[in-house]
Amino acid sequence: MYSFRNDYSETAHPSILQALMDTNMEQLLGYGMDEHCQNAIRLMKEKMDAQNVDIHFISGGTQTNLLAIAAFLRPYEAVISAETGHIHGHEAGSVEATGHKILAEPTEDGKLTVAHAAHALRLNSEEHTPRPRMVYVSNTTELGTVYSKAELEALYAFCRENDLYFFIDGARMGSALACEQAGLTLSDYPRLCDAFYVGGTKNGALIGEALVIVKEELKEGFRWHMKQRGATLAKGKVLGVQFEELFRGDLFMELARHANRMADILRDGITALGYPFFSDSPSNQMFPIFPNDVLAEMEKEYADTFWQEMDPDHTCVRLVTSWATDEKAVRGYLEKLAGLTK
Amino acid sequence: MYSFRNDYSETAHPSILQALMDTNMEQLLGYGMDEHCQNAIRLMKEKMDAQNVDIHFISGGTQTNLLAIAAFLRPYEAVISAETGHIHGHEAGSVEATGHKILAEPTEDGKLTVAHAAHALRLNSEEHTPRPRMVYVSNTTELGTVYSKAELEALYAFCRENDLYFFIDGARMGSALACEQAGLTLSDYPRLCDAFYVGGTKNGALIGEALVIVKEELKEGFRWHMKQRGATLAKGKVLGVQFEELFRGDLFMELARHANRMADILRDGITALGYPFFSDSPSNQMFPIFPNDVLAEMEKEYADTFWQEMDPDHTCVRLVTSWATDEKAVRGYLEKLAGLTK
Amino acid sequence: MYSFRNDYSETAHPSILQALMDTNMEQLLGYGMDEHCQNAIRLMKEKMDAQNVDIHFISGGTQTNLLAIAAFLRPYEAVISAETGHIHGHEAGSVEATGHKILAEPTEDGKLTVAHAAHALRLNSEEHTPRPRMVYVSNTTELGTVYSKAELEALYAFCRENDLYFFIDGARMGSALACEQAGLTLSDYPRLCDAFYVGGTKNGALIGEALVIVKEELKEGFRWHMKQRGATLAKGKVLGVQFEELFRGDLFMELARHANRMADILRDGITALGYPFFSDSPSNQMFPIFPNDVLAEMEKEYADTFWQEMDPDHTCVRLVTSWATDEKAVRGYLEKLAGLTK
Amino acid sequence: MYSFRNDYSETAHPSILQALMDTNMEQLLGYGMDEHCQNAIRLMKEKMDAQNVDIHFISGGTQTNLLAIAAFLRPYEAVISAETGHIHGHEAGSVEATGHKILAEPTEDGKLTVAHAAHALRLNSEEHTPRPRMVYVSNTTELGTVYSKAELEALYAFCRENDLYFFIDGARMGSALACEQAGLTLSDYPRLCDAFYVGGTKNGALIGEALVIVKEELKEGFRWHMKQRGATLAKGKVLGVQFEELFRGDLFMELARHANRMADILRDGITALGYPFFSDSPSNQMFPIFPNDVLAEMEKEYADTFWQEMDPDHTCVRLVTSWATDEKAVRGYLEKLAGLTK
Repeated sequence: MYSFRNDYSETAHPSILQALMDTNMEQLLGYGMDEHCQNAIRLMKEKMDAQNVDIHFISGGTQTNLLAIAAFLRPYEAVISAETGHIHGHEAGSVEATGHKILAEPTEDGKLTVAHAAHALRLNSEEHTPRPRMVYVSNTTELGTVYSKAELEALYAFCRENDLYFFIDGARMGSALACEQAGLTLSDYPRLCDAFYVGGTKNGALIGEALVIVKEELKEGFRWHMKQRGATLAKGKVLGVQFEELFRGDLFMELARHANRMADILRDGITALGYPFFSDSPSNQMFPIFPNDVLAEMEKEYADTFWQEMDPDHTCVRLVTSWATDEKAVRGYLEKLAGLTK
Repeated sequence: MYSFRNDYSETAHPSILQALMDTNMEQLLGYGMDEHCQNAIRLMKEKMDAQNVDIHFISGGTQTNLLAIAAFLRPYEAVISAETGHIHGHEAGSVEATGHKILAEPTEDGKLTVAHAAHALRLNSEEHTPRPRMVYVSNTTELGTVYSKAELEALYAFCRENDLYFFIDGARMGSALACEQAGLTLSDYPRLCDAFYVGGTKNGALIGEALVIVKEELKEGFRWHMKQRGATLAKGKVLGVQFEELFRGDLFMELARHANRMADILRDGITALGYPFFSDSPSNQMFPIFPNDVLAEMEKEYADTFWQEMDPDHTCVRLVTSWATDEKAVRGYLEKLAGLTK
Repeated sequence: MYSFRNDYSETAHPSILQALMDTNMEQLLGYGMDEHCQNAIRLMKEKMDAQNVDIHFISGGTQTNLLAIAAFLRPYEAVISAETGHIHGHEAGSVEATGHKILAEPTEDGKLTVAHAAHALRLNSEEHTPRPRMVYVSNTTELGTVYSKAELEALYAFCRENDLYFFIDGARMGSALACEQAGLTLSDYPRLCDAFYVGGTKNGALIGEALVIVKEELKEGFRWHMKQRGATLAKGKVLGVQFEELFRGDLFMELARHANRMADILRDGITALGYPFFSDSPSNQMFPIFPNDVLAEMEKEYADTFWQEMDPDHTCVRLVTSWATDEKAVRGYLEKLAGLTK
Repeated sequence: MYSFRNDYSETAHPSILQALMDTNMEQLLGYGMDEHCQNAIRLMKEKMDAQNVDIHFISGGTQTNLLAIAAFLRPYEAVISAETGHIHGHEAGSVEATGHKILAEPTEDGKLTVAHAAHALRLNSEEHTPRPRMVYVSNTTELGTVYSKAELEALYAFCRENDLYFFIDGARMGSALACEQAGLTLSDYPRLCDAFYVGGTKNGALIGEALVIVKEELKEGFRWHMKQRGATLAKGKVLGVQFEELFRGDLFMELARHANRMADILRDGITALGYPFFSDSPSNQMFPIFPNDVLAEMEKEYADTFWQEMDPDHTCVRLVTSWATDEKAVRGYLEKLAGLTK
């Protein structure tokens, strides 16, 4: 059984584990004050061409989202998100657990537009409604779609005009950056939003996300906030060493490009065999729709994630590729699928 | 410079890193549903001789404390702790951030007694006071002292009589278990309290604590609670593989015994040279009091943690040994100290 | 200018103010422990034919909703509501501020059905989704519609089968009870749900709602919870005296029947003049749709609440009658409207 | 039985109830937007000689404290208070329920000094400790003591130097202002702190406190915050009408002066009979210490509040006078006490 279930099935890229081995017996300061964290921050700032940002390493994505949102907002402020946004349906109510409402807008393809944000603002404009103060998007989205640079610029302009913070969830930022048609580089991000994070867990790290705070007024006190919510690791270096490795050279982008390349092969193959997709995704997640009998056969050898029933005879599943995806498995998948296709 | 600053300066015991290497490319289910987590749980239940407990792996100690306390208590309930308790002064208000007040009792030596708990109960007995519902102790304590089995039994009996939950913070449980005079084994714990945790971070793991929930009514819904507070790792196996390694054989206790053995040598040496201690600690933390000029010399080669000024000429510092402490460094420390002692 | 804006424009029914005057200089215990509170509780239990419920007097509706939901749910549990539910859009995110997510279901007419609740349950059935544990409905609803006894019975049966609590917001319970076609009496309520509240503020009281907790396991500790959230009045008797007056005889229902009678006249008159309504409301709130020019004329003499634009030429407004509505004003409204109607 | 138990035994001063009667049938805007609220705010600003403050009317003291503290602080910030501070021991953990830790300092007489605040700051100065951001005092204190103007000035200067907000709980501000030796007027307050509240409930109002926010950066969004925590009354005018009445003329101070005058008579009488006091209180609360047999006789006719056991034979009780205290009852108390005194 080969798994296309997600991009966190394997543990970590070997060179990351090796870096942990190599630095194992160094005696370092705790809580992220060590030189590997400091060096990783320096490397990332260089790659982003942004010296004036704060960077914090955090264990996971849900934790990063809730920490950022809870730190940035006053108690009565709410966050606008696509209805498919990860914080709305897949984080067990974690944002609400910090006291903030999510104003969820239905979208076509998982991408929030200026029109959606304006709609949420219009619906919530009095003292008895929640008070919108932030726009949240994830890139890539939960449907694998990717924002263009122009789309993000339009959202950020709208946010600035309306006194909203703009926050980008980058759990799968690697894959978004590796989609060339989007026209985005890492160094664009600090100019496109007030805060974002660079996901490590889904792009080859053991654990770890890097939250980047751009807007000055959002920086204050964040380390206290992390500690208070249990997010500060005693051995902070476990995160620092990994991001140092990912950004020392080009490893972060190499891993993302591999994931997208595998996705391209898989997507092109499925398309060629005539199967439709639930969303038009150029990234490492895709959502093909199969007849149930075909799917049942495929799932004997290949694991996927059930997405939704389309009709009594067809099902949409999610397939995900990653830094670790074996091209042979991709070819095998397509071969088997071809055999099942009349 | 050799550091006795804490027990989390080095990364992880080499065999733990090796286990992560060995299992790296296995494709496993996320969120702690993988076979390493399941196997680690099985091994720990065996070691505890307790099949009917729930075990959850969590990244760090502050997170484990806040998760347990917030999950177990109703919104208006409070927790009784020693004033020196880790949750009171060293976790940045993390328990209060979940909505619960800590009722802090001053103690002699960091150990909470039945008399302290009864005092807190007496002070908080009306509808306008917080409502005590849990007793929290850490073992070893923040002053390195260790509870005897009889002391824990007395506290648990008091808790049951007064409808209080009893929770033991085991960030340094290894060192407590390795103190033979305390007369405690891991298998005693499930009979001594309603919930406790087994600390990995300070005893050789990369990251990770194992929360053990004994009392039936506290078990429900805990995995939702973890997810909601950002504590569920996508790659849960990173924790499972480590605890599997720690409890497959006797590694957990071997590491703790090494730490205590190093502490014994250090403590005996300092005692022999005539220096007093702030607390009577038999575990891997000790709190010697040095003349300031002696300390200044020592700190040129050995890092410690400042604890408190005793008088204008004397200072108490904390020295900590660990699984990684090099006996040569201990001997070197004592030799240098002897040279500075008239 | 006469106001049909809402049912809380006037202060309180004169006999309620008189009761406060009459008991003014009595020296009573604080915090709701006084004899008026106790007597009001006794009277309400008799009217409900339910001795085994807990009753708490609370200042306002949003406060009652948030107190009940936060007291009843564990931290990670969520509440299912109609998208139009008061807690979702009109309480400034107060439920989320206590940490709980609202799972909002679009409805036809403000009434949540078993199908809606089942849909929310289906969407939220894994460990990464919020965990539904309560169904919230308001009766009358925010669109003036009223649940029949059979509809509430069906919801409660569904809740019991699915381990969900069922809570009814009765901010306008008086008007719902006074709708005879619904076939509900106050004594039905304790058999129809796990908790509900009887609204005073919108039915003649100065301030005050009476929360009734039916289900045994939800009762514990509620007074601590109230105190902790700032909802316990030092002069609790201010609430007790009012509910004593409302339930000593039949005042509560008399006031509600007056409101509905005024609504019936208004609704019949508007209908007779040929104007449509946004919802089919038999209660003291109605939502007529007027041409904009007609409305502009009406609003010179009669205040209403803007509800929504229907098309560029038509607007829906809310008209509300109450215990205090003057029949002459109702007749005047219809007369003027007739004059404007071609 | 006559009660000296507290200053909220009676309902409200008759002229306040009369004002509610007189304005009863006015149709007014809800949620505090009515003209009585606006007028009360205007009157209070005049009395305070401060046009540039925000004033919000809130039902009770615990609610006002928690609203202010939760609105002003970021999630990880903590508040310094005397150990006897009302928020620490008598509000059921309400501040912690909003997520903020109270750093409690033991004091001599209920008054927090600069030395206490500095001590709390020193103890909490790293990233692992809570982060102090506010100093809270109550005036009068919970032991009936009163701050001098100089003491408040010193505290405020310390706060400004250390980037701390200074908040004064004025549940019994009336009595503090009526203590002439303190040298304080209402118009001093906006120059002495960043926010404070003027207590109505304990000085003749039915319910109601007036929160005054002085510091510009603390004003934003407070009405959303109130609504979100259930503190916005639909009939906000119930509060506005009362404060209008209290501050239209000099009623607020007249009521406070009556309470203090009754306290003076009572205190002088008890002192003359040779009984000691637990604290040196010049205000409307006093804490005499009686032999148990004397107290048992007194309590047959006069209700008090038990404070604490001093030794097996002596008990401290709290006696409170108010706007409603009958001088005859005070004389009767002293007469009876004289008869019991050898």
